[in-house]
Amino acid sequence: MTPPDPKVLAKIRVVLARTSHPGNIGAAARAMKTMGLTQLYLVDPAIYPNSQADAMASGAVDLLAQARVCATLAEALADTVLALGVSARRRDIVAEVLTPPEAAGRLLVEAQVAPVALVFGNETSGLSNEELALCQALVTIPANPDYSSLNLAAAVQVLSYEIRQAWLGQPGWPQPELDAASGAELENFYAHLETALADLEFLNPGSPGKLMLKLRRLFSRSRLAKEEVNILRGILTAAQTGRQSRQK
Amino acid sequence: MTPPDPKVLAKIRVVLARTSHPGNIGAAARAMKTMGLTQLYLVDPAIYPNSQADAMASGAVDLLAQARVCATLAEALADTVLALGVSARRRDIVAEVLTPPEAAGRLLVEAQVAPVALVFGNETSGLSNEELALCQALVTIPANPDYSSLNLAAAVQVLSYEIRQAWLGQPGWPQPELDAASGAELENFYAHLETALADLEFLNPGSPGKLMLKLRRLFSRSRLAKEEVNILRGILTAAQTGRQSRQK
Repeated sequence: MTPPDPKVLAKIRVVLARTSHPGNIGAAARAMKTMGLTQLYLVDPAIYPNSQADAMASGAVDLLAQARVCATLAEALADTVLALGVSARRRDIVAEVLTPPEAAGRLLVEAQVAPVALVFGNETSGLSNEELALCQALVTIPANPDYSSLNLAAAVQVLSYEIRQAWLGQPGWPQPELDAASGAELENFYAHLETALADLEFLNPGSPGKLMLKLRRLFSRSRLAKEEVNILRGILTAAQTGRQSRQK
Repeated sequence: MTPPDPKVLAKIRVVLARTSHPGNIGAAARAMKTMGLTQLYLVDPAIYPNSQADAMASGAVDLLAQARVCATLAEALADTVLALGVSARRRDIVAEVLTPPEAAGRLLVEAQVAPVALVFGNETSGLSNEELALCQALVTIPANPDYSSLNLAAAVQVLSYEIRQAWLGQPGWPQPELDAASGAELENFYAHLETALADLEFLNPGSPGKLMLKLRRLFSRSRLAKEEVNILRGILTAAQTGRQSRQK
């Protein structure tokens, strides 16, 4: 049996969005490193860098030193082809909900070809609707229904553990079926979509919020391929041109 | 499908031996409660009770309030029929080493009839040889060989998670094959053994350490049934009596 490929683990990033307590960032880095994950992304952390983060990281301070700090979640996901949001089960969100082993398998398949992300929200409020809209599916850790509140680093530990078990258990993964669009390609598409809808006067440029969020969710669920993004943008351009020519 | 029985989870105790940092005790309680475990035993904790433990426990302070503080590990295991020690893989210990799912299965089978324990050592030094000798097998969380040092509460989280997954996955477990001796019955047997060996002048009562530890390991690995303990103690009594009558 060929040993599993560490390059695959290096393509799986842990993204911590709007973390309040720096100690949790350090503890999350330690949890990742014990399972062989190395890529830590911090989106708009409340306090960072910080000595408490270093203390909780223990022997994983190297992950903190290499961590990428991003202003927005979109920036942290720009080059990823799959982002899974970690969340308690939410009935208000229409999204595919994966178990931890399912999520681990999905991430490992895609990580063979391009970066993928596991996204954790704020300790108290979790992932916002805007953040969830950037994820293609959710992962829920099955927990005690009377008390399901895992500490942030504990959730990172459980999911990193499941990724490592899946990675150790299967050295060869099937190739991904989809040539998925990257986060940046998707963002460019959404920007184009918003402009086009404004041109078509279907959307009020002053308050695009709700409609764009619904459209993002729709497309996130379906996971767009690069080719599909090109087709959709072609349609948008055609619609814009038609509109402009009718206006002449 | 009948739902799994919560009474089984209530028979699985988490024993933290000689914990240095009270924050870890609180975080461990939280980790347990998220997975439906409730029975926390603390053996000779450095600092307890403590406000940091309460803070880290978050919504699991009820587990801390009910936690049992014991002077020795033997006391914490007195009524248990199975104790699994959590440890990084150690080549110097001859013991059965279980994976987390194997350990979860084993604990759930036995917990149907009597209390069982998952034993965690000190944050820095782990389980001592004396503590390991009270455990029937080890559990090792497969980790990054370059950095395998999980935080104490993170290890509690991973193993509690595996117990819950196994519990959710299989409402009915086979009955345990062995009518296992309890921790207290084993301790009485070891005390009897030590006295008998001293009577036989096989053991120097001034320094029983090494020999008794080796014998404990041997019997721990084999997991004694109640009936076997009775037989062995019968043999010991016979040996003592024979000795005494020869001495007359």
